[in-house]
Amino acid sequence: MIIVIQCKDQVGLVASISAILAKHQLNIVSMREHVDKAENVFFMRLEVEDGDGHELEGTLREVLPADTIISVNPIPYKKVVVLVTKEYHCLADILIRNHFKTLGATVQCVIGNHTTLQNICQRFDMPFYHISHEHISKAEFEQQINNVIAQYAPDYIVLAKFMRILSPAFVTKFPMRIINIHHSFLPAFIGANPYKRAFERGVKLIGATAHLVSDELDEGPIIAQQIIPVNHSFTAATMVKAGQEIETAVLANALKLVFEDRVFVYKNKTVVFG
Amino acid sequence: MIIVIQCKDQVGLVASISAILAKHQLNIVSMREHVDKAENVFFMRLEVEDGDGHELEGTLREVLPADTIISVNPIPYKKVVVLVTKEYHCLADILIRNHFKTLGATVQCVIGNHTTLQNICQRFDMPFYHISHEHISKAEFEQQINNVIAQYAPDYIVLAKFMRILSPAFVTKFPMRIINIHHSFLPAFIGANPYKRAFERGVKLIGATAHLVSDELDEGPIIAQQIIPVNHSFTAATMVKAGQEIETAVLANALKLVFEDRVFVYKNKTVVFG
Amino acid sequence: MIIVIQCKDQVGLVASISAILAKHQLNIVSMREHVDKAENVFFMRLEVEDGDGHELEGTLREVLPADTIISVNPIPYKKVVVLVTKEYHCLADILIRNHFKTLGATVQCVIGNHTTLQNICQRFDMPFYHISHEHISKAEFEQQINNVIAQYAPDYIVLAKFMRILSPAFVTKFPMRIINIHHSFLPAFIGANPYKRAFERGVKLIGATAHLVSDELDEGPIIAQQIIPVNHSFTAATMVKAGQEIETAVLANALKLVFEDRVFVYKNKTVVFG
Amino acid sequence: MIIVIQCKDQVGLVASISAILAKHQLNIVSMREHVDKAENVFFMRLEVEDGDGHELEGTLREVLPADTIISVNPIPYKKVVVLVTKEYHCLADILIRNHFKTLGATVQCVIGNHTTLQNICQRFDMPFYHISHEHISKAEFEQQINNVIAQYAPDYIVLAKFMRILSPAFVTKFPMRIINIHHSFLPAFIGANPYKRAFERGVKLIGATAHLVSDELDEGPIIAQQIIPVNHSFTAATMVKAGQEIETAVLANALKLVFEDRVFVYKNKTVVFG
Repeated sequence: MIIVIQCKDQVGLVASISAILAKHQLNIVSMREHVDKAENVFFMRLEVEDGDGHELEGTLREVLPADTIISVNPIPYKKVVVLVTKEYHCLADILIRNHFKTLGATVQCVIGNHTTLQNICQRFDMPFYHISHEHISKAEFEQQINNVIAQYAPDYIVLAKFMRILSPAFVTKFPMRIINIHHSFLPAFIGANPYKRAFERGVKLIGATAHLVSDELDEGPIIAQQIIPVNHSFTAATMVKAGQEIETAVLANALKLVFEDRVFVYKNKTVVFG
Repeated sequence: MIIVIQCKDQVGLVASISAILAKHQLNIVSMREHVDKAENVFFMRLEVEDGDGHELEGTLREVLPADTIISVNPIPYKKVVVLVTKEYHCLADILIRNHFKTLGATVQCVIGNHTTLQNICQRFDMPFYHISHEHISKAEFEQQINNVIAQYAPDYIVLAKFMRILSPAFVTKFPMRIINIHHSFLPAFIGANPYKRAFERGVKLIGATAHLVSDELDEGPIIAQQIIPVNHSFTAATMVKAGQEIETAVLANALKLVFEDRVFVYKNKTVVFG
Repeated sequence: MIIVIQCKDQVGLVASISAILAKHQLNIVSMREHVDKAENVFFMRLEVEDGDGHELEGTLREVLPADTIISVNPIPYKKVVVLVTKEYHCLADILIRNHFKTLGATVQCVIGNHTTLQNICQRFDMPFYHISHEHISKAEFEQQINNVIAQYAPDYIVLAKFMRILSPAFVTKFPMRIINIHHSFLPAFIGANPYKRAFERGVKLIGATAHLVSDELDEGPIIAQQIIPVNHSFTAATMVKAGQEIETAVLANALKLVFEDRVFVYKNKTVVFG
Repeated sequence: MIIVIQCKDQVGLVASISAILAKHQLNIVSMREHVDKAENVFFMRLEVEDGDGHELEGTLREVLPADTIISVNPIPYKKVVVLVTKEYHCLADILIRNHFKTLGATVQCVIGNHTTLQNICQRFDMPFYHISHEHISKAEFEQQINNVIAQYAPDYIVLAKFMRILSPAFVTKFPMRIINIHHSFLPAFIGANPYKRAFERGVKLIGATAHLVSDELDEGPIIAQQIIPVNHSFTAATMVKAGQEIETAVLANALKLVFEDRVFVYKNKTVVFG
């Protein structure tokens, strides 16, 4: 059973929570806790041996502050919709993990603004919706995406190299539930063509960043980042290829963390109990 | 105030401990906990805001199992004696950190079985004892070392590239209090000349391991390990040079972890709350 | 056009080779060279702009020592047969890259000693041969494998988590043409159950090694190695999972290097122009 | 003997150069070459067995294009002046390596705009000049620095956490001869307080960049970069401490590369034959 708690910090929180667990005879398998001293916020993630989650949540609510965010026994396999454009690497990795049931979530469908990745989806019996952004307004484009998403009521939307910028209106509908992979070590190279700009700047490492999507482009809370070394022998094109390897790895890692309820969001940052 | 606790696991331990902290009105700054399910052992490290450590320890002892290892407010600056041979890199790094008071410990003296590093010690007004291993028995050699150590009653002995193997008799005097840096990613290349053997095997990464010293050569509990990539252009000699950079870094990191009471030892392994 | 050359070192080799390239008006795109001083062997990999490879090879042979290994314009897409057991991660990664034509080779078929991975192969229209090792001798088992391989005449055989040890008799048939992924940073944890042994030893990093297969178990020339950090919170089982991520990455990287003719083998070591 | 060559690319360059080496009976120990296809520039670094460098340079000049940059047998131990402010970590590392003659350069003197680091310099018998930036104009400040530098005629100036911005007028005097360590993975967090900004952005990795100084702040050619992972448990202050470890390592690595004549500069980028 997993328990996640987020509330205003105060003396005795751990004592209150752990007393309740002891009273329910629940053995703690793992406990991670963090206090943001600047913001005075308390974060906790517990794994306990199985018990009555519903009853436990009730008892915790009685004791903890009124506005505490508690989740006892969160959905073990989150439902996910994936948005893509043309690049296959992140999607293929997700489809493989989904197929072998190691994703920690179930992919409901894939939406692409090109048809390039329809075939790979079909090979995994994965519903694929082609919604082109061409010849229609952004509002209309997003409305069509939204219509598909609505059918599946996913817990998270994963942008697996989806190369269109979503409007604040769209993002607001899924607050802190859209996960994006950006192809640079943010905040370096915000926006378009990060590898081209990395090449031009002559950096010696390139990176990738998985983050939750907020209103501001590439400014949402960062979940995970990784880099690989590059050198003068790389062109912008070979940087793209090398970068794809880390994009895949970082997104996979970030999804694992989110799906295992290890990621807390507060004030545009994350607490990650990795 | 730092509190470290190690005992047999049982339901309600966190509740008992945190209730006592709350009763003493102690605010938890950070709490790390681990349960070794296989061995049924509970490990906890707490940082709390300052309070009466002596009184707290008493109250904890009343509640926790009889054979619990508790340390409330451990010595903030451990006393350390460093043993060296000829290589300067680890010692120099330790002397620098000691000089600028960022080591988290105070070096009492340096013992060398060669005089090579006497000069650098003198530059930092650091007592240096030359104890040669030549023309005497190992027992005599270690007795002389022990005599110097005894004057300083150090909390830890650091083998900063000390190239003599200490006898079980010596090691037993300082159980889990001798920290060694081994120049390979153990358990690869146990024993002598690891870089030469790494070169001959054609490995693509070389490493270093900081570990606590036990009776068996290079078999003690590992604290920290790190590697760097190498390739065909390396000779055994350039591997040594490259490796020294990580030896320095790994030992510095391991010492930091030990001196901050982040390392627990159990059954020839460590729990490290990094 | 790619040119790889391996021969006894002597003064003037680079001059001879580059003079011939210049005479053929071939522009050097990239040149990598290594001399093993201990063994007195010269290795070179050249990328030059396109030209008449056949004629060039002839001219080079006239000038270079008689026993020089020269390959001008090696097969751009090597043919590969993959051997698997039950674990999907390495195979799936290879199938995906093969499908999207980014492997640098073409997978001819997959042979499994279990049927677990038949389904994923079928999804990619990849021939899958089930050859069980049960109830037959090793010689018979390998004979059956060999019969399948013979149909495809592959350039390389990839052991993508194939959990049977191949006999020297089999290995000898494909000298330095069998690529294996071993789930440890060799030479640590040679043989079976490396993660279990890593867990028991309490290492702080686990790794994976891609190597060419020789007669001796896990002793062949190493192509690539990689590690990830682990800590006390890992069990042997979660080490396996974490390790699979690197196994996939290291094997992919090693295959890329081999398929791009960047790997030279000499005296049980590799020269890798990465 | 080391030979570095940089010129406009053309067919036959390697042939011409290697023919001359062969004619002089010089054995090539290592050869690294790069062609910037976009800019049509050729870079080469050679290590050859010892010979008459002066004569060789003459012969090479006859054959290579008029504006070729050639350096045969560059000064083996470059002269260096180090500028510092208050932080000790980079300077101490440089002083240690200088003392043990593993820096690949000789430090002539240290200039500090505070007296904090005078003591550590004295311990190594290293001349220290205190030039305060207070109560004087930047022009005057830099004039005083320049006066000290002029006495030593160094090959390179190393900014080892020198926290004043040098004017273009000053920088112009030492084109591509000033090496700086910046405490972020550029181009992220250009300018002041990078760790504070990294903390506020909630990044999951922090880095350091060693670069040559140009007119534009933090925009000069990058030599080396490195990162370390951070998480929510870091404050801006502990990020500073963690970052200092990499600053030290990256600067040490960059200096090694520069002092061994492995770094070529072209169009605000570097070619590094590492």
